[in-house]
Amino acid sequence: MAFFRRKVQFNDDLGFGSTPVIKNQRVLNTDGTPNIERTGLPWFKFDDTYTRLVTMSWPRFFMVILITYLIVNTLFAVAYNIIGIQNLDGAKGITLRDQFFDAFFFSAQTISTVGYGHISPQGFITSVLAAFESMLGLLAFALATGLLYGRFSRPTSKVSFSKKMVIAPYQNRSGLMCRLVNLRRNSLIDIEVQMFMTYNETIDGKLKRSFYPLELERSKISVLSLNWTLVHPITDDSPLFEKSLEELKVAEVEVFVILKAFDDTFAQTIHTRTSYQDEDIEWNAKFEIMHYHNEEGKTVLDYSLLDKTLPTSIS
Amino acid sequence: MAFFRRKVQFNDDLGFGSTPVIKNQRVLNTDGTPNIERTGLPWFKFDDTYTRLVTMSWPRFFMVILITYLIVNTLFAVAYNIIGIQNLDGAKGITLRDQFFDAFFFSAQTISTVGYGHISPQGFITSVLAAFESMLGLLAFALATGLLYGRFSRPTSKVSFSKKMVIAPYQNRSGLMCRLVNLRRNSLIDIEVQMFMTYNETIDGKLKRSFYPLELERSKISVLSLNWTLVHPITDDSPLFEKSLEELKVAEVEVFVILKAFDDTFAQTIHTRTSYQDEDIEWNAKFEIMHYHNEEGKTVLDYSLLDKTLPTSIS
Amino acid sequence: MAFFRRKVQFNDDLGFGSTPVIKNQRVLNTDGTPNIERTGLPWFKFDDTYTRLVTMSWPRFFMVILITYLIVNTLFAVAYNIIGIQNLDGAKGITLRDQFFDAFFFSAQTISTVGYGHISPQGFITSVLAAFESMLGLLAFALATGLLYGRFSRPTSKVSFSKKMVIAPYQNRSGLMCRLVNLRRNSLIDIEVQMFMTYNETIDGKLKRSFYPLELERSKISVLSLNWTLVHPITDDSPLFEKSLEELKVAEVEVFVILKAFDDTFAQTIHTRTSYQDEDIEWNAKFEIMHYHNEEGKTVLDYSLLDKTLPTSIS
Amino acid sequence: MAFFRRKVQFNDDLGFGSTPVIKNQRVLNTDGTPNIERTGLPWFKFDDTYTRLVTMSWPRFFMVILITYLIVNTLFAVAYNIIGIQNLDGAKGITLRDQFFDAFFFSAQTISTVGYGHISPQGFITSVLAAFESMLGLLAFALATGLLYGRFSRPTSKVSFSKKMVIAPYQNRSGLMCRLVNLRRNSLIDIEVQMFMTYNETIDGKLKRSFYPLELERSKISVLSLNWTLVHPITDDSPLFEKSLEELKVAEVEVFVILKAFDDTFAQTIHTRTSYQDEDIEWNAKFEIMHYHNEEGKTVLDYSLLDKTLPTSIS
Repeated sequence: MAFFRRKVQFNDDLGFGSTPVIKNQRVLNTDGTPNIERTGLPWFKFDDTYTRLVTMSWPRFFMVILITYLIVNTLFAVAYNIIGIQNLDGAKGITLRDQFFDAFFFSAQTISTVGYGHISPQGFITSVLAAFESMLGLLAFALATGLLYGRFSRPTSKVSFSKKMVIAPYQNRSGLMCRLVNLRRNSLIDIEVQMFMTYNETIDGKLKRSFYPLELERSKISVLSLNWTLVHPITDDSPLFEKSLEELKVAEVEVFVILKAFDDTFAQTIHTRTSYQDEDIEWNAKFEIMHYHNEEGKTVLDYSLLDKTLPTSIS
Repeated sequence: MAFFRRKVQFNDDLGFGSTPVIKNQRVLNTDGTPNIERTGLPWFKFDDTYTRLVTMSWPRFFMVILITYLIVNTLFAVAYNIIGIQNLDGAKGITLRDQFFDAFFFSAQTISTVGYGHISPQGFITSVLAAFESMLGLLAFALATGLLYGRFSRPTSKVSFSKKMVIAPYQNRSGLMCRLVNLRRNSLIDIEVQMFMTYNETIDGKLKRSFYPLELERSKISVLSLNWTLVHPITDDSPLFEKSLEELKVAEVEVFVILKAFDDTFAQTIHTRTSYQDEDIEWNAKFEIMHYHNEEGKTVLDYSLLDKTLPTSIS
Repeated sequence: MAFFRRKVQFNDDLGFGSTPVIKNQRVLNTDGTPNIERTGLPWFKFDDTYTRLVTMSWPRFFMVILITYLIVNTLFAVAYNIIGIQNLDGAKGITLRDQFFDAFFFSAQTISTVGYGHISPQGFITSVLAAFESMLGLLAFALATGLLYGRFSRPTSKVSFSKKMVIAPYQNRSGLMCRLVNLRRNSLIDIEVQMFMTYNETIDGKLKRSFYPLELERSKISVLSLNWTLVHPITDDSPLFEKSLEELKVAEVEVFVILKAFDDTFAQTIHTRTSYQDEDIEWNAKFEIMHYHNEEGKTVLDYSLLDKTLPTSIS
Repeated sequence: MAFFRRKVQFNDDLGFGSTPVIKNQRVLNTDGTPNIERTGLPWFKFDDTYTRLVTMSWPRFFMVILITYLIVNTLFAVAYNIIGIQNLDGAKGITLRDQFFDAFFFSAQTISTVGYGHISPQGFITSVLAAFESMLGLLAFALATGLLYGRFSRPTSKVSFSKKMVIAPYQNRSGLMCRLVNLRRNSLIDIEVQMFMTYNETIDGKLKRSFYPLELERSKISVLSLNWTLVHPITDDSPLFEKSLEELKVAEVEVFVILKAFDDTFAQTIHTRTSYQDEDIEWNAKFEIMHYHNEEGKTVLDYSLLDKTLPTSIS
């Protein structure tokens, strides 16, 4: 009563669990992150602060810094006013509003350690607070450095996968193919790829989520200089053998690709993943060739062709 | 005369030594650190300064920085007073106490490089000292940055293990189980786990500390997206076969779990360990299921259920 | 119709593609980077900014920083002038040109957080801008730190390969040889080397680019303390067996060497590559010996001899 | 005519070369660095600057920073004087010497970005130079940060080897032993050790330097919590079988130990090496036991006993 033929049984849920999925539910999002919601703990128990600050987008990161800077300076401005604005020598504000801003700008000059000195602290308590604030500025530098460096140096791959998979002719049969390029100038070396398929399947009368590896014609290359087309030949052994698009839809098929490589510039191993659902698979199409040799003895790789497919027919 | 059956002999003390333990002595603490005291060397020979500063708690770390800042400024304040407070142009203190604090705040403004300038150094020696102190400030920035970054970027795992192990029904027999989740949003990939048991045992009339691996039904998963329950099936081959709680207590049993994984966000391998003693094992209990699929096509993982067990009976 | 004998068939293009090359086209440049041009994407889609800043030469890197510093200060100077130069207390410029430079130097003192204070901001908008600029300075520090550290700590190898390969006598036959040294004092350990040859070849009437491994007499050493000579023995099985220089030229032969090692000082794996074309191969030559034991019980390694060859004849 | 029996032939010089050594020449120094002198290149070709700054001792490192700080400030002081000391507003020096120091301290206040402002730049050229110097200060911060962090975070092991090897009774025969401990609190895991012996040997009438592995009774442990004694059993197969101290001396024997481990705190692989010569081997001695269990349920490891040996006799 199994949906697919399977000569290659795969007794492994890869860590995703074997509960069957609801309509169109993905195991992986297209960016390769697991499609999971986490609950049951207070937010501060999830230890994600550094990870979040490092992985959030640049505009959002700068907003967080700017807002923190405003809040901290506001708090110190209030504190300097409570202690007494007369302790800020050179502050000329008369109204409460002006006095707040005098203290606010003094605070900014202190925490950034710019310290022009046209406003300067007098009296014991104000001097202590200013000394403390400049130490805080020192740590703020350090923090910002750590975060920025963490963001920069994170060994992210910029491997770009084609948006679609194709089912194209391959060695008198057909093959399921996708392709990929490296958006960075870094060489990627010792690249290894695995392809898996997951779908709902009834086993012993129980609906389960099954996982099968899709054998690749070639799963490892030494250097990723050009584009690389991954080919799963649809042989008798393939779980895709003689399946129709309709059957794939019903079984909520998802194909995912896991890539591991060594980044030569930063000497670190990177991982990346992507996933395709039934609507991402183009039948009877093939990829256009992406690279050629030019006159000046260079190989030219045209990235704009990555997703470009041509119609073809499988004999 | 061996205490446990053992078809799986394990001739290896894993590096913990084979001396039998005294009552309730742990090999590993629950946080996975070895339960060892080190003596015989002067403290400065143990090269732990950086490690300590990087691994201590945040409140303690900030206390260390604050106290260092106070001490350094006090020392410089004393030095400026010895050289002569009249060399600090703009310092208005009359009493010794005020002169000390003038010098103290000048020092703070110098080492943090805020340098308002309402107090400024005059004369050769004071100027030299101030120039030296600002260079020290520069290095202090650098140090703080290094330490903060070291603290942030350390590839710590936040894998959380269940507080208890259970002995639950498993495939017509029973199994020793614990489970784990990832408290971070980072994906952990290629996770490998080993489980060991250690206990006092009399071999050839000599009491020894023995170590046995506990075979796991599955010791490796590709991605840790959900919770993972480790199962050691208690078969005839298991050193736990037909043992009672009482026997475990007498032998000072300790079970420990060693986990190794690859952190996808920081591209680093992490290790974590935990250990359970006899009182941490619940008999005739099973874990409650932690995840389910919700209506919006997401898998929901409820962390609050990690330690939740249900009574069960082993037929 | 194959050009070379091949007992060692190698069904692998290593990721470089199998299109035959045009005259003198290299697969790898001599510095080991792939000889590829990338097109088809807008420049900002190639995510190379950090990689470029980290890998560019030092003079160019400092030029980029200097020019950025000038541009940013110019922009702020213009902004301060638009808001009104009278808000910069202490600025004495009368002419427009002098007013611009007053603002420019104030900006430089603010962004570098030096803040002498002889010019200081007055009025709300100017104070806000100055506070913002000093925060920017804080981030600029952080950025510069990240980049400089990224440049320094990048695990680059300084393995130097001999400029030429030689074909020298080797065990009653001949061998293709090149040699290498480590320009750093770091120990390199567990060094592994692979040698490949690529050339145009007509297979089934189609001109293809083929890749063959060249077996090395020894492909792995534990420590690279001295120089290391790589030897490919030209046996019957070698694709180079009984080939003439002329045949190599016609086939557009390129030999490349891939090295992988563990850098002991930084605990990181490094990779390096080089490539030789037909004109880089010296026939009937051998390398001069580079190291000897001196009187003081040291081994002396003379780097100036790296490329030094001596004429020899292959019997 | 071989000096030693060898059932375990080892056709490998490990990368140290096979030239026989002169009297007492070491292959490795006791700290594990290769005993090699490098010549033949101008000093700037050896790319060791960063490595040197990172690996030099702390006092020397601070001297380098201090001297650089003095030199840079002196150069700027000279430049400010050449441009004209009258452009430093607030500098009160009359004599040349005082004018130099005014400029020197102004420079120090600028490069460290402390900028009190009691001396401030006037005029175009002086202002440009000061703006440039403060930018340099910014980069100096960055540099110092990178270097300090590089020094701190370098994954150095602090494994301490016993100063002596012993030849002690072992399983009815004898064994060559040394031992080691970890001076850091970090756990070292997956520790692997190899032991080699090298000596001068006449093969086919030619004096050569040979390398043989010494088989260890156990070459891998999971965790280095306690001390670890490495044992090479001197069986019939050992190159040390029935050798006398005298024979070892003549052959210029050197034993070296190569250790590889994973540092759990920093998630990095570390390597360390040591070497013993004939005079470092104690005959008929054994190591004293270093650890015991105390009353409070802790294992106590007494580091002062690391080198402690007791006389014994080999039956």
